[in-house]
Formats: sequence, structure tokens, C-alpha cells
Amino acid sequence: MVENETQKQTEQERSKPINLSILPMASTVKVYGPPNSAAVSRVLACLLEKDVQFQLIPINLVRGEQKKPDYLKLQPFGQVPVFQDESITLFESRAICRYICDKYTNQGNKRLFGTNPLEKASIDQWLEVEGQNFNPPTSVLVFQLAFVPRMKIQQDENLIKQNEEKLGKVLDVYENRLGESRYLAGDEFTLADLSHLPMSRYLVNACGRGELFTSRKNVGRWWDEISTRETWKKVNEMQNSPPRQNA
Amino acid sequence: MVENETQKQTEQERSKPINLSILPMASTVKVYGPPNSAAVSRVLACLLEKDVQFQLIPINLVRGEQKKPDYLKLQPFGQVPVFQDESITLFESRAICRYICDKYTNQGNKRLFGTNPLEKASIDQWLEVEGQNFNPPTSVLVFQLAFVPRMKIQQDENLIKQNEEKLGKVLDVYENRLGESRYLAGDEFTLADLSHLPMSRYLVNACGRGELFTSRKNVGRWWDEISTRETWKKVNEMQNSPPRQNA
Ligand SMILES: N[C@@H](CCC(=O)N[C@@H](CS)C(=O)NCC(=O)O)C(=O)O
Ligand SMILES: N[C@@H](CCC(=O)N[C@@H](CS)C(=O)NCC(=O)O)C(=O)O
Repeated sequence: MVENETQKQTEQERSKPINLSILPMASTVKVYGPPNSAAVSRVLACLLEKDVQFQLIPINLVRGEQKKPDYLKLQPFGQVPVFQDESITLFESRAICRYICDKYTNQGNKRLFGTNPLEKASIDQWLEVEGQNFNPPTSVLVFQLAFVPRMKIQQDENLIKQNEEKLGKVLDVYENRLGESRYLAGDEFTLADLSHLPMSRYLVNACGRGELFTSRKNVGRWWDEISTRETWKKVNEMQNSPPRQNA
Repeated sequence: MVENETQKQTEQERSKPINLSILPMASTVKVYGPPNSAAVSRVLACLLEKDVQFQLIPINLVRGEQKKPDYLKLQPFGQVPVFQDESITLFESRAICRYICDKYTNQGNKRLFGTNPLEKASIDQWLEVEGQNFNPPTSVLVFQLAFVPRMKIQQDENLIKQNEEKLGKVLDVYENRLGESRYLAGDEFTLADLSHLPMSRYLVNACGRGELFTSRKNVGRWWDEISTRETWKKVNEMQNSPPRQNA
């Protein structure tokens, strides 16, 4: 799936006479950024669901590679990810995911962005809810609870409390919704659910705030289902293995 | 365009014998919310660009009508707008706009959401930038500068400063971008530009922060162009005229 595998195969082929027609086609899809970044992993999960081959180009955020002039030509805000295929360079993880689903409609998980305009509109609505309602308080919590302690600055208790309350209200709405349907946009796993995985993972694993999910019956059930998908497990594996120098 | 005009015509017709075939078809598109709400006016601007007839259903935010049980069935977060047509009920203004553009592709402004997948992806990218990068600091500024003074609570000077800086950095990227192309996603006015109108209007008119735009040559030129479009002037007129009791 990922370029690393393709490279391994190519190395095995090296001693044999080359038959060009059976060589795996070099993937033209590139994703720039570290797989453990939330926004990058959103795009990776989408590519895996859609069964699209890609090449991961490491960008070292600690060394500030995302602020270098050459990178800023691809992503003017100096953030990851950037997505490239033969015809386009794109940033903004949710816009990238929508593009991937539209381009590879008939490949991989065909229901990820719906099969008709009404399904698509409902998925898009819940994807916006993630970006507008779920992500803002969750980002503050993840920053305060997981990153601030490592940065020798003080946690803002007040901000933590406010954002736990905000997120709690959002999850109360999800609890109702997930009592009516198995997933957010209906009875299928879609981009709307997928988009919640990256920040939720931080909230549960790095912030110890899993209770926000498990204390709500339907939200807990939903989180169990979406976080144990094979594609998401693969993203987690990519996050845990050190980046290849040559990738 | 708006239901009010249709109603006027209907009143004039009242004394004549009725010929059903020439009566204007009742609009099936409904938008719930006051036209001066930012998120509502985003949807109104889109409907006017796409030349779609609609009916505006007033929701009184001061009286808390957006938190009433019947309304929460339409919008579980208790916010405006809600959009309805014969086949769907939707919330989240940006998702509504994308749906309108997809449904009415061949009507009104045909370039609002692009004419091919690559144009569309670029528009969607800049629409995400508005939702993720421009809107958050702008919302804080509009709340602090325009609403807090009326609420007998104190302005947070620090928060204002931080968010002016954040927004300034976003607008620096826009300044570069708008030096390369007339509008954000290319040389046509699109949904990406449109989506900036509602909060920018507050920032310029109600917060006296027009300088953030005019101090940047290309951003100032862009704001002049987009804010003087006929469709946006109509939205402003709707905002300034008192809501009809019977609407
Ligand atoms: N809205 C953007 C957010 C991207 C973002 O926040 N990226 C973070 C990592 S998750 C980043 O690049 N941080 C490094 C920096 O801002 O310098 C998207 O969804 O793509
Ligand atoms: N992300 C939502 C935001 C909607 C929103 O913030 N609506 C505001 C008015 S602009 C509202 O309903 N405020 C009243 C309230 O929250 O009680 C959208 O784009 O539709």
C-alpha cells in the first residue's frame, strides 16, 4: 500500500531481468508530513479506505521544515499535510479527503462519501460539524493536556474546564444522533466518522480523556467501532514505526 | 427572488380571475434564521448567486427560538441556519452552500463552485481555509469588539491582540495569493470568496477593523470587489429591512 512496500518489491526484482509490464506502477500520489500529525493521518486513513497507493514524504515539524521557503510554495500557511497527484497540489486535510473520494469514486470503500447527492450532503454536513464543533474544543484540550506539560509552561485550568464543557455538549448531540443511526451520517461508516479519528485518538490515548466517550453509551459504542477498523490500525502502525530516511 | 416579492405579486393578482398556470410556483426552498446572522447570510448570498427562489423563516435568536424542542429537531446544536428543500433538511452553512451549488449546477452563477473537478478542489481548499483559518480569529474579534461592549462585560485586550495577530498572518497569505490571482481560488469569484463576506462585513462595519484589509493592497482590492457585488448588496438590504410578521 505504502511506497515502502513497493520499494521492497523493487529491490527483490533487481537481480532478475526486468519485465516492465509487470513492475508495479510508481504511485503518483504523494502526501507530505509525518503520519502522527492529526491532519496528515486524516488523509492517510482516507487513502487507505479508498485503496489508493501513495508515497509519504517526511516533513520534520520539530526542525521547522514546514516553514522553509520551498515548502511554503506548496502550503503557504506552513502546515502539513500537502497532497499531490499528477494533476493537482492541495492542502487542507478535509478538502483533500473530499477530492480523493470524488476522484476515486469507484475504488476501495465506495460508500465513504455516499452513493447519491442526498447521502453526500448528509456526510458533508457531519464532516462540517467535526471541523466546526468537534475539532475546536478538542484541539484546545489536546494542546493543554498532552503538549503543554512537555513545554515547561503552565496548563490553563480554566480553558481546560471551558473546553471540556463545550466538547461535552457536542458529544451529547452525538449521543442522541448515534441512538438513531449506527454512524453519524447514517448506517454506513463515512468520511464524517473517519474525520474524528485523529483528534479522538489523542484525546483518548495521550490525554486520558476516554471517559468523555465511554461515559456516553452510543458514543462509546461508535468510538469502539471506528477506532478498530483495519485501515485505522494501519495508520497507527505507520505512526509507531520510525520514518524511513529514503522515503 | 425572496418570498416577499412573490407575496406582493400574489396580492396584486387577488382581484383578477385566477389562472393557476401563470401563478409563480411556491418556492420549496426554506432557510430558517435571521438574515443578519453571519452563517445565515452565507447561505442567502449563495442562493442569490445561484438564482434559487427561497422563503425565509424568521427565528428570533434573542428570544431563544433556536433552542426550542421543535427547532432542535431540525438543528440539534440549536443554531441557525437550517436549509430545507423538497428532499432534504440540512444544517452547517458551508455544507448547505456546497449542496446548493451541486444541486443547481446549471443555474445562476455557473462558476461559483467550478466547472470541473480540479477547479472544484481548489475552491473547496480555500473554503476550508476560510472555515479553519480565517473564521476562528475573526469570530473572536467580532465577539470581543462588537458584542462584548453591549453586554456589560469587559473586553479581553489580550485575546483581541492575539487574534489580530493570528488574522494578520492569514491575511498576509491572502495578500500574496491575491497578487497571483484575482480571487482566492483563481480568476473567478467563487464560493471561497463568498464565504468570507459575512464575518468580514462585521469586522469592517461593526468593529472598525477595515484597516486589516485596506492596509494590504491586494486584500483591499479583493474586499472592494467582493463586497460590492449585487447579490451581496441584496443580502445587506434584507438585513436592514425589518422581518415580515407573516414571512
Ligand atoms: N486545517 C489544516 C490544519 C493543519 C495543521 O494543523 N497541521 C499541523 C499538524 S496537525 C501543523 O502543520 N503544525 C505545525 C505548524 O503549524 O507549524 C488541515 O486540516 O490540513
Ligand atoms: N458552523 C455553523 C455556525 C452557526 C452559528 O454560529 N450560528 C449562530 C449565528 S451566526 C447562532 O445560531 N447563534 C445562536 C446560538 O448559538 O444560540 C454554520 O456555519 O452553520
